[in-house]
Amino acid sequence: MEPEVSTYPIGEPGGRARLDTPALLLDLEALDRNIARMAAHCRRTGQALRPHAKTHKSVEVARRQIAAGAVGQCCATLGEAEVLGRAGIPGVLVTSPVVGPRRAARLAALNETTQGLMAVADDRGAVAALASVVTGKPLSLLVDVDVGTRRTGVPSAQAAVALARQIAETPGLIFAGIQGYAGHLQHIYDYAERARAAAAVSEQLAHVCAVLAGDGLSPPLVTGGGTGTHDFDHRHGVLGELQAGSYALMDVDYGKVALTADGQPGPFEPALFVATTVVSAASDEFAIIDAGLKALATDGPMPLFARGAPEGAVYSFAGDEHGRVHYAAGNPARLKVGDIVELHPPHCDPTVNLYDTYHAMRGDVLEAVWPVDARGRR
Amino acid sequence: MEPEVSTYPIGEPGGRARLDTPALLLDLEALDRNIARMAAHCRRTGQALRPHAKTHKSVEVARRQIAAGAVGQCCATLGEAEVLGRAGIPGVLVTSPVVGPRRAARLAALNETTQGLMAVADDRGAVAALASVVTGKPLSLLVDVDVGTRRTGVPSAQAAVALARQIAETPGLIFAGIQGYAGHLQHIYDYAERARAAAAVSEQLAHVCAVLAGDGLSPPLVTGGGTGTHDFDHRHGVLGELQAGSYALMDVDYGKVALTADGQPGPFEPALFVATTVVSAASDEFAIIDAGLKALATDGPMPLFARGAPEGAVYSFAGDEHGRVHYAAGNPARLKVGDIVELHPPHCDPTVNLYDTYHAMRGDVLEAVWPVDARGRR
Repeated sequence: MEPEVSTYPIGEPGGRARLDTPALLLDLEALDRNIARMAAHCRRTGQALRPHAKTHKSVEVARRQIAAGAVGQCCATLGEAEVLGRAGIPGVLVTSPVVGPRRAARLAALNETTQGLMAVADDRGAVAALASVVTGKPLSLLVDVDVGTRRTGVPSAQAAVALARQIAETPGLIFAGIQGYAGHLQHIYDYAERARAAAAVSEQLAHVCAVLAGDGLSPPLVTGGGTGTHDFDHRHGVLGELQAGSYALMDVDYGKVALTADGQPGPFEPALFVATTVVSAASDEFAIIDAGLKALATDGPMPLFARGAPEGAVYSFAGDEHGRVHYAAGNPARLKVGDIVELHPPHCDPTVNLYDTYHAMRGDVLEAVWPVDARGRR
Repeated sequence: MEPEVSTYPIGEPGGRARLDTPALLLDLEALDRNIARMAAHCRRTGQALRPHAKTHKSVEVARRQIAAGAVGQCCATLGEAEVLGRAGIPGVLVTSPVVGPRRAARLAALNETTQGLMAVADDRGAVAALASVVTGKPLSLLVDVDVGTRRTGVPSAQAAVALARQIAETPGLIFAGIQGYAGHLQHIYDYAERARAAAAVSEQLAHVCAVLAGDGLSPPLVTGGGTGTHDFDHRHGVLGELQAGSYALMDVDYGKVALTADGQPGPFEPALFVATTVVSAASDEFAIIDAGLKALATDGPMPLFARGAPEGAVYSFAGDEHGRVHYAAGNPARLKVGDIVELHPPHCDPTVNLYDTYHAMRGDVLEAVWPVDARGRR
């Protein structure tokens, strides 16, 4: 489902002021610096980088990450995998279990036409269902291990061994390794606390690897980790590859996570913004902008103002399509109808998923308009 | 931007079990009963009904509401108005201020090609900007009055008079009346408290009408109200038309609002559901379904289970694409990978906006697949 970007003009080349709003902005220079920094980090640590596309849902961003050295892309849905795979992105790993005959058939079809596709499993029946539809190229499967996120994944090393053996012994399937994604750690704000928790996860994964190796099923690949834990995901020599996603775009919540030991801001900078227009200035206490519940993720902290709002102003939601810019006491500056205000989104992934289009900005110039290729794709 | 429904098959005619998930379900029988009940209510009270399309974003739902007697549709964005207007829906009222030269031009163009279009204004400069682009058919404008929602709207009766006079005296514009939408009241759970607050709003609107009438600017139309206040919006003879939206679909939060004096459930029933699939059952404490932050609104209460989950189970979010079904203590029933579970959405409007497609169900049979025509349209 390609958005007809040319017939639904959200913005025109030339500048920020010409954007229709609310508009999703991508700061290309910040994006490229984030991409380069994570690529350099992984070169230093010797890990492969397979960025998570659930964050950006964009073929163009994926290509930039791969050009900088990424080995592929993680996808949280089969739909995302199909969009990227069909655009020629190699090395797609579907990080959520693929269940049921229809999805198995879609995965098998995608496997025929793309390079390096992998999927995960935590259930014997689901593994059998996948095998039953593979007719051509064998399908690479990772055993998903629960490392405390209380989501998907087998609960024990023994269960991992049983599933790995089933995969290894089933015609049409290849046991490609294990996934251990510690989603529950990524947003722990304190560096030391998060590092300790991640060390425990690494220990658990190391144990699973040892048990598998003892049964002749040493995992060729161990994949996991994220932006929050990237600074120590390599430390125990367990995670051969990093699945970080948010680093590319960042958001208000990740701004609160101390990503490095020295507690300084960084190393990744905000690259995603929402541009809005002041549509009402009838009150002296606040102005109304055209971004509300349908323009910003609502599962995190409040959005913060990035540009255009008076010093000290605070945002609050005012329904589906509106938000308030509450003026700070003591600041007489007031917005006018038509002014442009930009916001840092609370949580990048669900914010991106609200939009059909990125406005790729180079400084103040709109350089390109990219579809959010996998918006809403399951 | 038409979704290619035929090439992105989410579901197939024949039944709930064949839906790919997460899928947005519309219970056609409940929808039609809701539509009929509100239409009957408005006939009894003598109010016109102009349902709010921000809830359903669907040409098909709009047509059903108009077939049942609605005078048109309210739209929260110009994009929604363009989608409905171009599909031939008459009587579209854009309930948010239209500002800036580009939006003014879009509105003027839409006015040329649709019947009964109206817009609102709360700012003199915005009114002048609208007038400057009207070349053909005059544009009907309502003065938006702030009745306590602290969003858009002029703050006083005097400001309303000044704006009404400007509109009435500007060539190309028609003063069509006033809008006074009490968004801040709609989700007050207690009936009596909400009724008292709504009475105060009616009093305020009546005062504005009297002041306008005193200046020879009696408003031809007074529009406002919502699902939460519908039972008493007519009581003071002020609101000539009702803008209710949520009644058509309902949600968990509106399930907590006592809509009638007797405190009984009703009169509107849940018509919107999210269907999900169990993708992991590796834990004995919970199962994982494929609906998370990107499948359900996150600005309200937790979603509730409608069908398919064991008695007493509770939902929690587990990331972008997953949710947990927490089993109740003492209930040994367990879900299996592949089971279908249906949820009541927390807040209907932002939930609908996450999807490209409705699955219109008649009982257990998928009768039709409708686009969410105005998804993401601004």
